[in-house]
Amino acid sequence: MCPVRTFASDNNSGAHPAVLAAITAANAGHVHAYGDDPYTRRAVEVLRGHLGEQADVYFVFNGTGANVTSLSALLKPYQAVICPATAHIATDECGAPERFTGSKLIGVPTPDGKLRPADIAAQLGGIGVEHHVQPRVVSISQVTELGTVYTCEEVRALADCAHAAGLLLHMDGARIANAAAALDVPIRSFTTDAGVDVLSFGGTKNGMLFGEAVCFLTPGLVGDGKFVRKNAGQLPSKMRFVAAQFAALYEGELWRELAAHANAMAERLATGAAAVPGVEITQERGANEVFARMPRDHAAALREVADFYVWDEAGSEVRWVASFDTTEQDVDRFLAALRELLG
Amino acid sequence: MCPVRTFASDNNSGAHPAVLAAITAANAGHVHAYGDDPYTRRAVEVLRGHLGEQADVYFVFNGTGANVTSLSALLKPYQAVICPATAHIATDECGAPERFTGSKLIGVPTPDGKLRPADIAAQLGGIGVEHHVQPRVVSISQVTELGTVYTCEEVRALADCAHAAGLLLHMDGARIANAAAALDVPIRSFTTDAGVDVLSFGGTKNGMLFGEAVCFLTPGLVGDGKFVRKNAGQLPSKMRFVAAQFAALYEGELWRELAAHANAMAERLATGAAAVPGVEITQERGANEVFARMPRDHAAALREVADFYVWDEAGSEVRWVASFDTTEQDVDRFLAALRELLG
Amino acid sequence: MCPVRTFASDNNSGAHPAVLAAITAANAGHVHAYGDDPYTRRAVEVLRGHLGEQADVYFVFNGTGANVTSLSALLKPYQAVICPATAHIATDECGAPERFTGSKLIGVPTPDGKLRPADIAAQLGGIGVEHHVQPRVVSISQVTELGTVYTCEEVRALADCAHAAGLLLHMDGARIANAAAALDVPIRSFTTDAGVDVLSFGGTKNGMLFGEAVCFLTPGLVGDGKFVRKNAGQLPSKMRFVAAQFAALYEGELWRELAAHANAMAERLATGAAAVPGVEITQERGANEVFARMPRDHAAALREVADFYVWDEAGSEVRWVASFDTTEQDVDRFLAALRELLG
Amino acid sequence: MCPVRTFASDNNSGAHPAVLAAITAANAGHVHAYGDDPYTRRAVEVLRGHLGEQADVYFVFNGTGANVTSLSALLKPYQAVICPATAHIATDECGAPERFTGSKLIGVPTPDGKLRPADIAAQLGGIGVEHHVQPRVVSISQVTELGTVYTCEEVRALADCAHAAGLLLHMDGARIANAAAALDVPIRSFTTDAGVDVLSFGGTKNGMLFGEAVCFLTPGLVGDGKFVRKNAGQLPSKMRFVAAQFAALYEGELWRELAAHANAMAERLATGAAAVPGVEITQERGANEVFARMPRDHAAALREVADFYVWDEAGSEVRWVASFDTTEQDVDRFLAALRELLG
Repeated sequence: MCPVRTFASDNNSGAHPAVLAAITAANAGHVHAYGDDPYTRRAVEVLRGHLGEQADVYFVFNGTGANVTSLSALLKPYQAVICPATAHIATDECGAPERFTGSKLIGVPTPDGKLRPADIAAQLGGIGVEHHVQPRVVSISQVTELGTVYTCEEVRALADCAHAAGLLLHMDGARIANAAAALDVPIRSFTTDAGVDVLSFGGTKNGMLFGEAVCFLTPGLVGDGKFVRKNAGQLPSKMRFVAAQFAALYEGELWRELAAHANAMAERLATGAAAVPGVEITQERGANEVFARMPRDHAAALREVADFYVWDEAGSEVRWVASFDTTEQDVDRFLAALRELLG
Repeated sequence: MCPVRTFASDNNSGAHPAVLAAITAANAGHVHAYGDDPYTRRAVEVLRGHLGEQADVYFVFNGTGANVTSLSALLKPYQAVICPATAHIATDECGAPERFTGSKLIGVPTPDGKLRPADIAAQLGGIGVEHHVQPRVVSISQVTELGTVYTCEEVRALADCAHAAGLLLHMDGARIANAAAALDVPIRSFTTDAGVDVLSFGGTKNGMLFGEAVCFLTPGLVGDGKFVRKNAGQLPSKMRFVAAQFAALYEGELWRELAAHANAMAERLATGAAAVPGVEITQERGANEVFARMPRDHAAALREVADFYVWDEAGSEVRWVASFDTTEQDVDRFLAALRELLG
Repeated sequence: MCPVRTFASDNNSGAHPAVLAAITAANAGHVHAYGDDPYTRRAVEVLRGHLGEQADVYFVFNGTGANVTSLSALLKPYQAVICPATAHIATDECGAPERFTGSKLIGVPTPDGKLRPADIAAQLGGIGVEHHVQPRVVSISQVTELGTVYTCEEVRALADCAHAAGLLLHMDGARIANAAAALDVPIRSFTTDAGVDVLSFGGTKNGMLFGEAVCFLTPGLVGDGKFVRKNAGQLPSKMRFVAAQFAALYEGELWRELAAHANAMAERLATGAAAVPGVEITQERGANEVFARMPRDHAAALREVADFYVWDEAGSEVRWVASFDTTEQDVDRFLAALRELLG
Repeated sequence: MCPVRTFASDNNSGAHPAVLAAITAANAGHVHAYGDDPYTRRAVEVLRGHLGEQADVYFVFNGTGANVTSLSALLKPYQAVICPATAHIATDECGAPERFTGSKLIGVPTPDGKLRPADIAAQLGGIGVEHHVQPRVVSISQVTELGTVYTCEEVRALADCAHAAGLLLHMDGARIANAAAALDVPIRSFTTDAGVDVLSFGGTKNGMLFGEAVCFLTPGLVGDGKFVRKNAGQLPSKMRFVAAQFAALYEGELWRELAAHANAMAERLATGAAAVPGVEITQERGANEVFARMPRDHAAALREVADFYVWDEAGSEVRWVASFDTTEQDVDRFLAALRELLG
């Protein structure tokens, strides 16, 4: 039904066979609903293996759900979130964060989707003044919405800056596996060990059917996560089926293999495309996404070969995303078409 | 890991094999995310076959998500919902309806979980007066939270009463399949044809992994369903996997077979239990749930055989729920234990 | 324009001359807006004289504003308020509490508008269970919506019960002056000294133009009152004009004289009416309100003499409210008309 | 207590004597609460005289209250407001608009606080796409937060652009009188006649104690204003005291005289300051506010003479606001001090 894999989104891919197998294996008899089951206990332990024993883990349905649950647990309505203007929470969640929290999102323009400590400092002038929203959370995406990746040191610097001002650091890790693979470090290096307080741990984009996890990393920070999740409509009743997927990916190294493969396919694509006259790579590729500028008319023709998004209509910028199931043939066929179009 | 199936909840059961097979079949290549895919289009058509061509169908993750999306689409914060005091939205969703809508839920005491037209009429005194919340939605559960089932005529009477007062009728159909099987009528008989305006169409409890559908049944009533869903955090990215499950169950008669089986197991259980001295059936059994009174101490012992919920600690009332996968042996073993305990 | 004073509401009365004089006196030159002015500092000190030096006082516009600011400071959306079913927050604020807090109000039926410790205890069964809202605040009105008054001991018993369960006690003191006058005790006897955590301190109904105060009585409980107030839209810019009114009433004994007078007028009315055949006093009169049953048709005729509200249309119950400016002649004329109608 | 009048804010001024006299005159006997009284009916007629007979007028307490009531009546949570980044709703209301509506505010950078049609057009790209908030309201301030004033034609152009895209135009008229005086036109010229749909009509800053009005100008647009107001906590119980103030100012020309005087004082100040070496006027003065750049250290010294706000600490920009009661002597003394400091 779909002759080739697209470069539109890692959400266009399906599930990895091991994930399906784990679901089937978990489909045995009755277990208690809502997470009081051995599959969930196991998956929580698996994620704690990545994040530290102190991590408080809550499985939820989707990325927006993970983000709003995370933010709801941290914010009062008069408080605010500092984030890049391009953040998913600011641009792609149809206002769900404002709706759930009542809080303002302060979107800061950035050249590359990455927040810097100075961006935080610039928003602190109104602290203590009742007329102004009170910044409380700094939210970053790892991988960012522009495909770039924070180093561990960059995350740590943001955490230190946030904490020094009495703020908390949230990470939207929808592509956390791709970031870890790109940095070639353990997940905890740029999360728990770098000072992240709350993490939206992504599963869907890296080969799951659905499912993410809200992980409170700082001990004692949030004591009511289970109520916040349920109140946000994000408590899966047959929780074992989320948990089993996470265990299938994260108990061993499968998560990293899938993410590293997607990253490698993006690199292959970026390298090939950069050599085509008329194509300009616009963002430093960090993981499994490529941002490039190409002639607008040719972009439309290229989308017939394999679909992707035109990121910025005005500037002819496009986004190509590789998935865990993208093949070298997919990339090469796409590059061939690109060369032919621009040749 | 679980020697017997419980009677605690149909959420304790897993997924039907046909559902898993459908997911596997849908796991082929790339399709567009967020519902722009052939699986979703097909599943929407399938549900329209049950509800009428005018139905506007939005797949979501879970029951609370379906209810809050439904209610959010209908309500302004100064408006109110009239529902039975025992309604799931009023008692089992951790306040999510109030949090999403800002609206008040007016819980009306009922003997059997069923609202009557007079219950609606009694709440209309403050209409037009700015000091009071303005009733806008009547919400009923089919099957109710006490296991009873509205007849088609009862639903119609509520719809007529609601509409005459300018109100809308929402149905929480978490167990809609069990209701249709119990009434032995098409689903549309007590939904579209009975005047229901918005329906939370249940999937999870009848053999799916996860997934429900918000169905706007009255043409022209709601035009912004897709925004309401996304804003509520209930838009699945890999939508095909929800859609495929619905198609697997509802394209043919599998949904009815599963629900009828669960209902029959509940009947076997109720009939057997009613014959045991010391057990009193407390609610007219409508579908797959049995409510009964039994000595408190024996309830604890019986839960060791197969778990269930004590519904009302003070009154020793218990709830037994049969699932699509409950077997006659499960029921008979449970009844044997009950007889032994009370013998 | 209004030949007689009504018995409809103490909100139908105007302002006491001393209140107007205080506003005029405060209308001298410029002072800083939003409360950084000597009038506000003085009024805060005056209220602290009544409530204790630890009281954290925030002036707001109106009663609903005071209640929603109080509750917003205490609640997360998954938490709930236990209150009498007749509470002003539950019935007369058009859903503003749910809208501001996202929280559920659990309205408990009472015979007389007064909550008892057992009413609290009966709502604690779901604590710790994520499916159910978590009671966090007990809210009572002093004077209640049925005109009754809690004794100091009754408030203390509710506070002890609430605190033992980890809950907080909020008091809606829209008629706090009338309660203190009725009990003939200092205000702090049934607020700070009785364990109330947060108080909506009423001003409007006892001779002010507008203005109430949110008073956080328990030290350390709420540290962000000024943000909560502003975020709730309840920060008066020309604050001095609220403050000056409070100082005019509460620096001396004027507040008590006005309230005691209103109470005495209500007593005169109740005593006179009770002697009229066909009239039945239905609630123990606590302060400045009288609830009575009288023939429905005569109620309409009596309203032509001086307006009042029919409280319960079905049961022919009426409410008569005396104000600070009600005169003996007002009462006697009303009683004469009552006697004539029913004679 | 305050030796000179400040230039900090028109909220630092008190009330005009005619306003106080009107309150005293309205303080006669009982009238119905909540606006069912002759004072309110009269004041509504007075405002309709300015805005057209179709105007639907709701008195509220304060500016933030007027704005959130206006916006709440127009918005669903997935919708958004386009406004200048400097808008009062975006920067000075502690997040109340987001909290009340759940909606996102899209703050557009402007050089002078004034939105242009192109700014609206630039935000319409995501319309119809469920991932993005849906712009629904354009909100402008007249006078703007930078002291500039829209011409009637500029407002009309914004209204046309908004309406063509299916959006509505809201005007925050906290200083509406100053704008009308500056433009020397009737109020309706840049409101009703220029296509404004909803107006926050300011009272406080131009000589009232408190009080604003939400005015729905487009017939049939909003039918539930009274519920929205009450639900927002903005329904004054003793409404006559708000109404009487509006009638006192707006029945004749007093409102215009006061505003024109304040504007003239600002002009005197701007003209005088512009002649002082080291002072640069930074915004085209439209009404009663002057924005200027001056040496930072001298600003602190000048604030000892008469207080004002440093608008932009980094850039040494200051804001001077004249009020209805500012005198020529106030201005001249301030200018003398300025000259001395910078001389």
